[in-house]
Amino acid sequence: MKIAVLQGPNLNRLGTRKPEVYGTVTLPDIVADLDVLAGEIEVELVHFQSNHEGAMIDWLQSLEGEIDGVVCNPAGLTNYGLSLRDALNECGVPVAIIHLSNVHAREEWRRHDVFAEIATVYFAGAGWFGYRHALQALLSKIGATR
Amino acid sequence: MKIAVLQGPNLNRLGTRKPEVYGTVTLPDIVADLDVLAGEIEVELVHFQSNHEGAMIDWLQSLEGEIDGVVCNPAGLTNYGLSLRDALNECGVPVAIIHLSNVHAREEWRRHDVFAEIATVYFAGAGWFGYRHALQALLSKIGATR
Amino acid sequence: MKIAVLQGPNLNRLGTRKPEVYGTVTLPDIVADLDVLAGEIEVELVHFQSNHEGAMIDWLQSLEGEIDGVVCNPAGLTNYGLSLRDALNECGVPVAIIHLSNVHAREEWRRHDVFAEIATVYFAGAGWFGYRHALQALLSKIGATR
Amino acid sequence: MKIAVLQGPNLNRLGTRKPEVYGTVTLPDIVADLDVLAGEIEVELVHFQSNHEGAMIDWLQSLEGEIDGVVCNPAGLTNYGLSLRDALNECGVPVAIIHLSNVHAREEWRRHDVFAEIATVYFAGAGWFGYRHALQALLSKIGATR
Amino acid sequence: MKIAVLQGPNLNRLGTRKPEVYGTVTLPDIVADLDVLAGEIEVELVHFQSNHEGAMIDWLQSLEGEIDGVVCNPAGLTNYGLSLRDALNECGVPVAIIHLSNVHAREEWRRHDVFAEIATVYFAGAGWFGYRHALQALLSKIGATR
Amino acid sequence: MKIAVLQGPNLNRLGTRKPEVYGTVTLPDIVADLDVLAGEIEVELVHFQSNHEGAMIDWLQSLEGEIDGVVCNPAGLTNYGLSLRDALNECGVPVAIIHLSNVHAREEWRRHDVFAEIATVYFAGAGWFGYRHALQALLSKIGATR
Amino acid sequence: MKIAVLQGPNLNRLGTRKPEVYGTVTLPDIVADLDVLAGEIEVELVHFQSNHEGAMIDWLQSLEGEIDGVVCNPAGLTNYGLSLRDALNECGVPVAIIHLSNVHAREEWRRHDVFAEIATVYFAGAGWFGYRHALQALLSKIGATR
Amino acid sequence: MKIAVLQGPNLNRLGTRKPEVYGTVTLPDIVADLDVLAGEIEVELVHFQSNHEGAMIDWLQSLEGEIDGVVCNPAGLTNYGLSLRDALNECGVPVAIIHLSNVHAREEWRRHDVFAEIATVYFAGAGWFGYRHALQALLSKIGATR
Amino acid sequence: MKIAVLQGPNLNRLGTRKPEVYGTVTLPDIVADLDVLAGEIEVELVHFQSNHEGAMIDWLQSLEGEIDGVVCNPAGLTNYGLSLRDALNECGVPVAIIHLSNVHAREEWRRHDVFAEIATVYFAGAGWFGYRHALQALLSKIGATR
Amino acid sequence: MKIAVLQGPNLNRLGTRKPEVYGTVTLPDIVADLDVLAGEIEVELVHFQSNHEGAMIDWLQSLEGEIDGVVCNPAGLTNYGLSLRDALNECGVPVAIIHLSNVHAREEWRRHDVFAEIATVYFAGAGWFGYRHALQALLSKIGATR
Amino acid sequence: MKIAVLQGPNLNRLGTRKPEVYGTVTLPDIVADLDVLAGEIEVELVHFQSNHEGAMIDWLQSLEGEIDGVVCNPAGLTNYGLSLRDALNECGVPVAIIHLSNVHAREEWRRHDVFAEIATVYFAGAGWFGYRHALQALLSKIGATR
Amino acid sequence: MKIAVLQGPNLNRLGTRKPEVYGTVTLPDIVADLDVLAGEIEVELVHFQSNHEGAMIDWLQSLEGEIDGVVCNPAGLTNYGLSLRDALNECGVPVAIIHLSNVHAREEWRRHDVFAEIATVYFAGAGWFGYRHALQALLSKIGATR
Repeated sequence: MKIAVLQGPNLNRLGTRKPEVYGTVTLPDIVADLDVLAGEIEVELVHFQSNHEGAMIDWLQSLEGEIDGVVCNPAGLTNYGLSLRDALNECGVPVAIIHLSNVHAREEWRRHDVFAEIATVYFAGAGWFGYRHALQALLSKIGATR
Repeated sequence: MKIAVLQGPNLNRLGTRKPEVYGTVTLPDIVADLDVLAGEIEVELVHFQSNHEGAMIDWLQSLEGEIDGVVCNPAGLTNYGLSLRDALNECGVPVAIIHLSNVHAREEWRRHDVFAEIATVYFAGAGWFGYRHALQALLSKIGATR
Repeated sequence: MKIAVLQGPNLNRLGTRKPEVYGTVTLPDIVADLDVLAGEIEVELVHFQSNHEGAMIDWLQSLEGEIDGVVCNPAGLTNYGLSLRDALNECGVPVAIIHLSNVHAREEWRRHDVFAEIATVYFAGAGWFGYRHALQALLSKIGATR
Repeated sequence: MKIAVLQGPNLNRLGTRKPEVYGTVTLPDIVADLDVLAGEIEVELVHFQSNHEGAMIDWLQSLEGEIDGVVCNPAGLTNYGLSLRDALNECGVPVAIIHLSNVHAREEWRRHDVFAEIATVYFAGAGWFGYRHALQALLSKIGATR
Repeated sequence: MKIAVLQGPNLNRLGTRKPEVYGTVTLPDIVADLDVLAGEIEVELVHFQSNHEGAMIDWLQSLEGEIDGVVCNPAGLTNYGLSLRDALNECGVPVAIIHLSNVHAREEWRRHDVFAEIATVYFAGAGWFGYRHALQALLSKIGATR
Repeated sequence: MKIAVLQGPNLNRLGTRKPEVYGTVTLPDIVADLDVLAGEIEVELVHFQSNHEGAMIDWLQSLEGEIDGVVCNPAGLTNYGLSLRDALNECGVPVAIIHLSNVHAREEWRRHDVFAEIATVYFAGAGWFGYRHALQALLSKIGATR
Repeated sequence: MKIAVLQGPNLNRLGTRKPEVYGTVTLPDIVADLDVLAGEIEVELVHFQSNHEGAMIDWLQSLEGEIDGVVCNPAGLTNYGLSLRDALNECGVPVAIIHLSNVHAREEWRRHDVFAEIATVYFAGAGWFGYRHALQALLSKIGATR
Repeated sequence: MKIAVLQGPNLNRLGTRKPEVYGTVTLPDIVADLDVLAGEIEVELVHFQSNHEGAMIDWLQSLEGEIDGVVCNPAGLTNYGLSLRDALNECGVPVAIIHLSNVHAREEWRRHDVFAEIATVYFAGAGWFGYRHALQALLSKIGATR
Repeated sequence: MKIAVLQGPNLNRLGTRKPEVYGTVTLPDIVADLDVLAGEIEVELVHFQSNHEGAMIDWLQSLEGEIDGVVCNPAGLTNYGLSLRDALNECGVPVAIIHLSNVHAREEWRRHDVFAEIATVYFAGAGWFGYRHALQALLSKIGATR
Repeated sequence: MKIAVLQGPNLNRLGTRKPEVYGTVTLPDIVADLDVLAGEIEVELVHFQSNHEGAMIDWLQSLEGEIDGVVCNPAGLTNYGLSLRDALNECGVPVAIIHLSNVHAREEWRRHDVFAEIATVYFAGAGWFGYRHALQALLSKIGATR
Repeated sequence: MKIAVLQGPNLNRLGTRKPEVYGTVTLPDIVADLDVLAGEIEVELVHFQSNHEGAMIDWLQSLEGEIDGVVCNPAGLTNYGLSLRDALNECGVPVAIIHLSNVHAREEWRRHDVFAEIATVYFAGAGWFGYRHALQALLSKIGATR
Repeated sequence: MKIAVLQGPNLNRLGTRKPEVYGTVTLPDIVADLDVLAGEIEVELVHFQSNHEGAMIDWLQSLEGEIDGVVCNPAGLTNYGLSLRDALNECGVPVAIIHLSNVHAREEWRRHDVFAEIATVYFAGAGWFGYRHALQALLSKIGATR
C-alpha cells in the first residue's frame, strides 16, 4: 500500500519560526516520524511540499494509479485552493485532510475549509502528532471500504 | 489518567438501524473496544450516553476534578447544544470532539458545529474506528501540554 | 396499525391559558378525540407529551419496530430540536408534523422549522382539529407507499 | 357553502409526465374525486386551472362575494406570485394552500413560499390525496370562525 | 402631450373591498379625476388596468412613439415584475412610479421595489390623491428635460 | 395651518456647485418658491437648514404644538439619522420625506432610507420642483385624516 | 427533428429601439436566419414569442411529444419566471438557454438566472448570432445523448 | 408577593471554577443574599436551578397561578432555549432576564439572546450583585403595571 | 465619588408627549429623583442632555479625570453613535448603558446597540425607575473593581 | 487571425478518469479537433494547458499583441482565479469562457464564476463539442466589432 | 497651495490618554509638525478639529473655493458620517483619508469605512507620522492631475 | 537596513497597456525610482515580481532573517492570496501593503482585501508615486518600534 503525503504552502518553514507558538518540530522531523510508523505497518509513503498550488497538482497527477490514499495539509490554500481540491477529488482514493490547528488559526479553518467537502477523514488540532493519527485513520478507512 | 467518553442523543441506537449505511457496530461494541485500548495504554475510561442534554451536563459536573480529558460525540446536539458546550468548556481539561460523519451528515457538521470552538482535537469521518484515534490524539495532546 | 402521537414542550398547558387566543380545548380533549377517530378506522394510537426533548427521544426509541407512523407537534422545539428530528428520522416510518399555528406563531414556524425537512406530511393552521387531518393524511400516505 | 379550487401553472399536465415520480392521477381525476367528497358533505366546488397568473386573479375576482373559501395550489408561482397572493388575500375568505410536495420540490416550498403568510391552512406532502384533507380542514376552520 | 396611466394587478377592485382601510374611491373615480385635471392642463391621458403582466407590456408596446411619459402603479408586481420594468424602461420616456401605500404594504415597497431603479419620479403614501401629484411632477420633469 | 420645511446637511450649497448636474436653483430660490405657493393656498411655512443633526432636532422640538406637518429632506442623514427620525416621529404630525434624487444618489436612498418608515408621504426624483408636490400632497393627506 | 424556439417578453421589439446599443437586427430577421440554417441541417423549427409567461407555457405544453429540444431566451423572465422554468423542465427534452447579453444586462443574468439550473446548454454574449450557435450546440448535445 | 428565581444550566457550578474570572460567590450565596433582601421587602422567593431545559419548564408550570414575576438567568440556553422562552412567556407575569456577563460571554448574549424579546426587564453585566437589582426593578415594574 | 449622567437626543421631551405610552415622568423628574438617591448614598451626580452627539462628547471630555463612572441613555444614537461610544470608552471609567425600553423600541436596541460592546452594566425595560438601578449597579461594580 | 486556447488546472487529465461521467475525449483530441476546424476557417490556434495559474498568465502575456481573441476554460480556477481574470482582461481582445459543465459542477460555476464579468462570450454545458461553438461565436463577435 | 487638515471626534484627546497604546504625541504636536513640513514645501495649511459632524461640515463649506485639497481623519465618524462624506465629496478637490490605526481599531476601519469611496488617497497604520505621508501623497496627486 | 519590494501578478505589464488609464510608468521605472530614494536614505532594496503566488512565497522565504520590512503590492492576489498572506505574516517584519488604486479597482480592494489584516501600513490611491510614501512610512514605523 502506498500513501501520498502532501504539504501545502509555508509548511516547509515549520519549526523554524515562532517555536514558542508552533513548537520546534520541523517538516523533515514529521516526514521521518511518519516513515518510521509506515515502516512498522508496512506502508510506503511518498512526500511532497510546495508553495505552488500548481506543483502540488502536478505531483498528485504524476502519482495517478500508484497510490491508495492521500494525507494532505492544505495550509495556506485551505480557504481557496479549489484546483487542488479538484485534483484530490479526481485521484479516486480516500483523502485525509489535516490541520495543525494552532489557537489563532482554529477559528478560520472551521468556517471556509473548501477541502472538508472531499475529505474522507478530517483531523485538526493535535499538532504534528496528528499526522500519525490521520495516516492510521485513513488506513483503517481504506481497509473498511475494501 | 482518567478520560470521560460522552455520547450524545440517538447514539445508543448505533448499529441497530440502517446497518447498510452506519455499519453493525453498536455503542457497547465501541465502549468495549475503547476499554481494551485503554487497558493497553493504562488509561481509565468512564462512559455515558444520554438523549438528555441536561443529563450529559449533570454527568460531566459529577466528574469535576476527577478527569484529565473528555472525548465527546455531541451527535444531535452538534448544531445547538450550547449548554453542553459550556459544561465541556468549564471542565478545564482538553476535549476531543468526534463525529462519525456519514456521507449525508458531513455537510452539516462543518457549517454550524458549535463545539468546534472549544475542541482541542477535532476528528471526523472514520466511523467508530475514529474513537480510537480521537482518544490517542487527546492523550498525546494532554501529554504535550504538561 | 399503530401510530405514535408525540406532543412537545408546553402543549400540556393547552386550553388552560389565554383561552381567547388558543381556545379551550385541552390536550386530554385532543387525545380523546383522536382515540375516537382511531377506533372508527381501526388504528391504535399511543400518546406522549413532555417538556424534555430527551424524554421525547427516549419514548420514540422505546417504540422502535412497533409503530407505523408518527404524528408530532414539536411546539417549542420547532426551531432547534435537531436531536428530536434525528430520532424521528431514524424511526424509519412516515412522520406528520403538525402546528396549531396561532396568528403570532405563524410567522416563525415557516422560517426555521427544522422538522420540515424530514416530514412526509406537513400540516399547519387548523387548530386542534388539524390533528384529525394530519392523522388521516399520514395513514393514506402510509397506505400509498406500501 | 361554495369553495373555489384554484390550480396553478403546469398542474394541468399532472399525471401525464413522469408517472413514476408524480403518479398517474390527473387533474380531472382530482377534480372528480373532490366533487364526490363535496357532494357527500354538501359543499359546492368551482374549479379553475391556468398557466396565467393574471387569469387566476381574474377568476378569483369574478367570484367575489360568492365563495366561502379557497383551496389553492400555487405550483410554479409558489416563490414569486405576489399578485395572486394579493388577490387571495383580498378575497376576504379563509385560504388553504396545498402543495403536492414531491421529494425534490420539498426543499424549495419551505424556504420562499410567498403564500404561507396569507394561508389559514397550510398543507403539504400527501400527494393528490392532500386536496381532500385541505378541503376538510378549511371547512372545519370556516365553521370554527363563524 | 400624451401620458399613459397604467394600473397593475388587483387595482380594479380598489374601493370595493375593505373601504375602512383603503377608502371608497374606485379606479373609475381616479381615472375620471385625472381626466379632469388633464383637461385643465391640456394633456391627453390613456388608461389601462390589467391583472396580466403580459397584457400591461402589450399595451405599453402598442403605444410606442405615441406617448411622452408613463404613470404606473405596479401594485402586486412591485417586487418581481421585471418584464414590465423592462418594457417601461424601453419606452424611452420618463416614468412616474406611484404606490397608494397603505400602512401594512408600506414596509414592503421600500425594500424590494424593482421599479424604483427605472423611475424618474417616485411617489408613495398619499392615497389616490397621489396620482394627481405624480402626474404633475412627471410633467414638470418632462418639461425640465426638454 | 403651519408647515415646517426642514433641510438637511449640505443642502445650503444647492445650486452653487456642479450646476450641470444639480441645476442652478439655490435653497433660497426653493424657499421663495414654496412661500409663494404657500401664500396662494393660505399656509404658513417656517424654514430651517442645518448641517447639524442636533440643531435640526432642537428646531423641531421648539415648534412642538405649533405645526401641522413637516416637509423634510434629510439629505446626508438619509441613511443613519435615527435621532432626527425619532424627533420627526415624535412631532405627532404627518411628515413628507423628499429627495432631490440625482442620478448617482438614487440607488442609495432606496436601500437604506431610515426615514421611509415614518413617512406619511414619500417623494423622490423631480428635483427642486418636488418640494411643491410634496407640500401639496402632505396638505391633502392632512386634510384627509381630519 | 423538431426544435421549439421560444422568445420571452419584450424581444418582439428587438431592433426597433436603441439600434446603437442593440443593433438593427429584428426578431423576424433572427427567425428567418435560423430557418435558413435549419433548412441546411434538416431540422424543423417552430417559433413563438410572447410577453405573457402563461402563453409561453401554454405553447410549450401544446408541443408535448412533438419536439426534440427547446431554444429559449427568457428575457425579462430571467430572474423570476419559475413557472416557465417548470414547464421547460417538464418538457423532458434538452433546453438551450440563450441571452443576447448586452453590456448593461450582463451583470444581472449571471446572478439570479433561475433558468440556469435546468439548462443543458447555456449561451450568452454573442448577440443574435448566438442563436445559431445555441441551436447547433443543442443539436450536437441531443445527438450525444442518443 | 411571590417571585420565581430560575437559574439555567451550569450556574450550579458558579464560584467553584475559575474564581479569578467569575469570583468566588456561589449560587447558594446568591440565593441567601436574595432571600435576605426579599425578607426586608416582604417578598417570597422560590428558587430553582437545573441543567435540564425540560425541568426548568416543568417547574415553571408547577407554579402557575402562584407567582407574580420571574427572575431568570437562562445561562447556556440564552441562544436557543425557545421552549423555555415559551414557558416564560406563557406564565403571564413580568419576567426579568439577567446575565452575569463576564468579559468573554458579553459579545454573545447581545447578538442572539432569544429571551430578550419576552423580557420586561433586561439586566446584564454587574455580576451576582445584579440579581438584587433585577429583582427590585422587576418589583417596581410589577407595581407600575397594577 | 462623582458620576456623570448623560441623556441622548429627544430625552428632553420625556413625559411631554404620548403620556399614555411613555408615562408622565419628565427628565427633570428623573434628575431630581436621582439626586435624592445620590444624596442618600453620598455620591455626586452631574447631569447633561443634548440633541447633539458632539455636545455630549464635549461634555464628557470636559469631565476627564473628575468622574468615577457614567450612566448613559444614548436614546436616538443607540444604533449609530460611534463617536459617542469612543468618547465613553476613552473615559476610562465604568459605563452603565440604560434604555427606557418601551414596547416598540425594544426590538431595535437588542439588534444593533453599538454601545453594548463598551457597557460594564447594561439595563433596559423598567422605565425611568431603571436609572436608580443602573446607578446602584454601576456603583457596586465600581466598588467591586477597586 | 490568431486565437489563444487556454486550458486550466486538471483539464490535462480529461478523458483519462471516470470516462462514464466525462466521456473518453482527451485534451489532445479536443486540440486536434479545433485545429481541423481552424484550418477550415483559416484561423491559427495556439494551445496551452497548465495546473499553475501563474504559468497561464505568463503564457498570455507572452502573446501580447499577437492574438485576436482567447478561448479559455478556467476549470478549477473558476471561482477564485482573479489574477488570471486580470490577465485575460488586460489582453485587450475578446474572451470566450467555456465550461464543460458536467452535472455536479454545473451548480457551482453559475454562482461564483469570477470570469463571467470579463467574458464577451459565455458558453457552458455541451461538453468538448462546446469548444467548437465557443470558437465560432468568438470569431463572429470579433468580426462584428471590427 | 492651501490644504485643509480636518480632524474628527475625540482626536483632540490624542496623547492625553493611554499613552502606552497611542503614544504621547498630541494633536497640537501633529499640527506643529505638519506646519513645519508645509513651510518647507511652501504649502499653506488650515487646521480644524471638532466633535461635531455638523461643525466639520460648516468649516469645510466656509473654505469653498479657497482650498486645493483636504487631509481628513474621520475618527469616530468613520463608519457612519455620510453627511461629512457628502461635504468632502462636494468640495471638488482631492481628499486624503488617514487613520492612525492602532491594533484594535484596525479591524473596524477596513470593513465599513464610508469615506473610502470618496478618497483619492487612503492611508492607514503609521500613527501620527502618517499625516506627513498623506499630505505629501495628496500633493503629488494634485500635481499629477493638473 | 534591507527592505523587500514584492510585486504581484500582472504588474510586470504596468505602463505597457492602456497608458491613458494607468499612465506610462513601467515597473522598471518604479524600481529605479525607489532605488534612487533608497540610496538617498541608505536603505537596501531587493525587488521581485511574479505571476506565481508560489514563487512570491519562495522568494520571501529565501530572504528570511535578512530583511527588515516588506513593501508588497498583491495586485491580482488581493482578494484570495491567503498563502502569500501567511508567508508575509510569518516573515516577522512590518509589512506595507500598497495598491495603485485606479478608479475601477478602488471599490474592490476595500471590500475583500485579505492582506489588510496583516498590514502595518496600508496605502492606496496615489499611483506609482505611492511606493515612495509606502516605503518611507514603513521605515518610520520600523524606526518607531525599535
